[in-house]
Amino acid sequence: MMNRSIITYILGWVIRLEGFFMLLPALVALCYQEKAGWSYLLCSIICLILGWIVVRKKPANTIFYAREGFVTVALSWIILSIIGALPLVISQEIPSMTDALFEIISGFTTTGASILADVESLSHCNLLWRAFSHWIGGMGVLVFILAVLPLAGGQSMYIMKAESPGPSVGKLVPKLQKTAFFLYAVYFAMTLLLFIILIIARMPVFDALCTAFATAGTGGFGIKADSIASYSPMIQGIITLFMFLFGVNFNFYFFLFVRQLKDAFKMEEVRWYFILFASSALFIALNLTLTGNNHFIYNLHHAAFQVSTIMTTTGFATVDFNLWPSFSKGILVLLMFVGACAGSTGGGIKVSRFLIYFKAAKKELAHLIHPRSIKILRLDEKAIPHEVVRSANIFLVTYLAIFAGSILLISLDNFDLVTTFTAVAATLNNIGPGLELVGPAGNFAMFSTFSKYVLMFDMLAGRLEIFPMLLLFSPATWRKH
Amino acid sequence: MMNRSIITYILGWVIRLEGFFMLLPALVALCYQEKAGWSYLLCSIICLILGWIVVRKKPANTIFYAREGFVTVALSWIILSIIGALPLVISQEIPSMTDALFEIISGFTTTGASILADVESLSHCNLLWRAFSHWIGGMGVLVFILAVLPLAGGQSMYIMKAESPGPSVGKLVPKLQKTAFFLYAVYFAMTLLLFIILIIARMPVFDALCTAFATAGTGGFGIKADSIASYSPMIQGIITLFMFLFGVNFNFYFFLFVRQLKDAFKMEEVRWYFILFASSALFIALNLTLTGNNHFIYNLHHAAFQVSTIMTTTGFATVDFNLWPSFSKGILVLLMFVGACAGSTGGGIKVSRFLIYFKAAKKELAHLIHPRSIKILRLDEKAIPHEVVRSANIFLVTYLAIFAGSILLISLDNFDLVTTFTAVAATLNNIGPGLELVGPAGNFAMFSTFSKYVLMFDMLAGRLEIFPMLLLFSPATWRKH
Repeated sequence: MMNRSIITYILGWVIRLEGFFMLLPALVALCYQEKAGWSYLLCSIICLILGWIVVRKKPANTIFYAREGFVTVALSWIILSIIGALPLVISQEIPSMTDALFEIISGFTTTGASILADVESLSHCNLLWRAFSHWIGGMGVLVFILAVLPLAGGQSMYIMKAESPGPSVGKLVPKLQKTAFFLYAVYFAMTLLLFIILIIARMPVFDALCTAFATAGTGGFGIKADSIASYSPMIQGIITLFMFLFGVNFNFYFFLFVRQLKDAFKMEEVRWYFILFASSALFIALNLTLTGNNHFIYNLHHAAFQVSTIMTTTGFATVDFNLWPSFSKGILVLLMFVGACAGSTGGGIKVSRFLIYFKAAKKELAHLIHPRSIKILRLDEKAIPHEVVRSANIFLVTYLAIFAGSILLISLDNFDLVTTFTAVAATLNNIGPGLELVGPAGNFAMFSTFSKYVLMFDMLAGRLEIFPMLLLFSPATWRKH
Repeated sequence: MMNRSIITYILGWVIRLEGFFMLLPALVALCYQEKAGWSYLLCSIICLILGWIVVRKKPANTIFYAREGFVTVALSWIILSIIGALPLVISQEIPSMTDALFEIISGFTTTGASILADVESLSHCNLLWRAFSHWIGGMGVLVFILAVLPLAGGQSMYIMKAESPGPSVGKLVPKLQKTAFFLYAVYFAMTLLLFIILIIARMPVFDALCTAFATAGTGGFGIKADSIASYSPMIQGIITLFMFLFGVNFNFYFFLFVRQLKDAFKMEEVRWYFILFASSALFIALNLTLTGNNHFIYNLHHAAFQVSTIMTTTGFATVDFNLWPSFSKGILVLLMFVGACAGSTGGGIKVSRFLIYFKAAKKELAHLIHPRSIKILRLDEKAIPHEVVRSANIFLVTYLAIFAGSILLISLDNFDLVTTFTAVAATLNNIGPGLELVGPAGNFAMFSTFSKYVLMFDMLAGRLEIFPMLLLFSPATWRKH
């Protein structure tokens, strides 16, 4: 039997935490004297009270298995989103609940796909809430709660596993809480650093705050209609760099921190992530230079920004890459699937999974030629456990199945195939913009309500790496045995 | 060390056989008094002599491992194609060697993608050779040679494994030769049956012969500019049925033949193949009826034809489905990847692989909920060996890698993304037409020479299920140890 009391208890904490988070937009509203702030204050108070009531009843037992882990994670994110959408609806700036839900799921899942045609008409507190939701979603609410709230010790690893992105081959620090604390320290420090650097680069304070949140979460909600295009090249360069840095596996920073430089630079995933980034930016810059009128350095600047934004699945833009030649668009579409490193705030299939796939394929091909040879798969000189490979394979299969199913359902809206295909790719990989109608200059408003819910499912499935969302809707999960 | 003498010996037989096959178009040219026939006679004589010289030197030993199998298969198909392209070039009807090679690789691999803008201007012997190449490629040249030419007994299974499509879970008949003979008997008989029925349905004899060849091989080269559109609905219906039948796993016919009806209808792959076919045709017919002006039966007729042609990877057309609504096009694009049954003449990833993927995914998800449960994967009530699952996974990974790489290379031609994407999908899955510029009303002529070679590689990789083509270009294959 499922341990429902502990699930409810954790959900109570999620609600409390969200109530606490909503005080920030309320504060911003106070600064700017905006009426919309009342909706945040109202929701915040309700959440704090409701959460307090739920949490008062401590769970009878804290036994916690994988099943509870997946259900808790999936339900937490759904509740987080429903509550998060309320202020947008109450303030009447996104009056439709479907649209508000789409917008905030896009926020929490760090996607950055918007249904807004005119983002600049939003009040400051709503703009901040959108960007802040990226930052909240990027760090993972549940892992945060577990770091603060010591439950049944080791068993909470089920939640961490379900909410953290990417396959985990090695373990960073034996103790979960210590790991979480270190990761949050890095996350906070890097966000703060970015905020300060942006202000030094003469970005307005409010813009810098929102941009720092959206970059750290690799989310991509901008506060201007043209995203980052109208900021100075210096600011664009800073954002390029920080998007890249937030897409790095955070273990890398841990190794740097404890001065194990060797271990840090031995990380194959980070190395390949960098190689992919650099070569993609270079190829696109070459392609643009050979087919267009701008000079190489200008092209490299924008190529690097767009590669960084797509690969880390952030979703900002400085140019409308929908107008680029096919080869450059092809690279971007493929990078949409690659995504960032595991253990970062980025989405996608993750570089480390691709490393596992290619290593396994190489091994199998060698095995075909020399059937008696025995090779062990290694990542960072450690053997990859058999279950990790199997799980990565199953991930690929379920990922493709959800992808194909979503395309079919979305295509009922009868938009062109590139719009349909990239809309699913951009949401399932938590990127934001796709191509054609959902390109950097477009938005997701024209989809039907049904399609919007499909895309919301995709965003959540992408952020939680599919399994929690699939299991939530599986009858076997709810069976009483 | 690789056993080169046996490889040369088998290649000699391939050349001889091709010389023999070329006598048919030469004969057709004689009937129609066409000058182009001389090129077939010339090539035929050269092949027969060259093949005879090569075959005279018997191999020193007949030891044969997987490595030799893959190399033999890959080289055979390349040599078959180079020689097969010569008459097209010599007769000056496809003067460019690249184009002729593309056309005949498309023929042998049963793809049916053409570089010809005006197919009706070809002489009869060239039209027949195109259709006949589908039939030759569909049956698998090497398996045919091994059935006739008993080499080192059981070791030739490496070749059969490499050339036959799909993963093999069960074994049909223990003895390879007996199996091959039975399969060819079915293949011949069904082709003959189709030919006779088409003539009864008042198709001209030459048209019926070419259409029977192209349908049996699930190839799709038509002899008319509008493919099958101008024939009667009756003929279209017959072709719909036979395309479907040639996409069925031939083991099904074996079970029917030995009257094991239970085993036949127990085959999950065939059942799902039928369910997918029927539901896709139905959904498309509904979609067309709801969005267009034609009535349901008319739409069902064309939906069934197009689903049959795409799913079996044949590639005929009766309507320009590029003009269909997105949902219908979406179904067709997804079916392009599914393909037909294993052990048929059709291409694609194959229904049985998808069954393996979904069963493995279902098992893994159940394992996440109940970690201590142990389940065995079964297909047709037989346990699926672990290597089959692993090999299917590696197939998917290498397939996607080749797919992604091809899209990048083709996109250098700067056509729209749908053209680029479906051109690769239509060749790698051996279908023929894609969408937009390579749709049923278009052709592949506009691609650059470089792109054409990429697509040729894709066609061969698709037909030989990737591994032989990958291993041919792998240094490890040629290393002397």
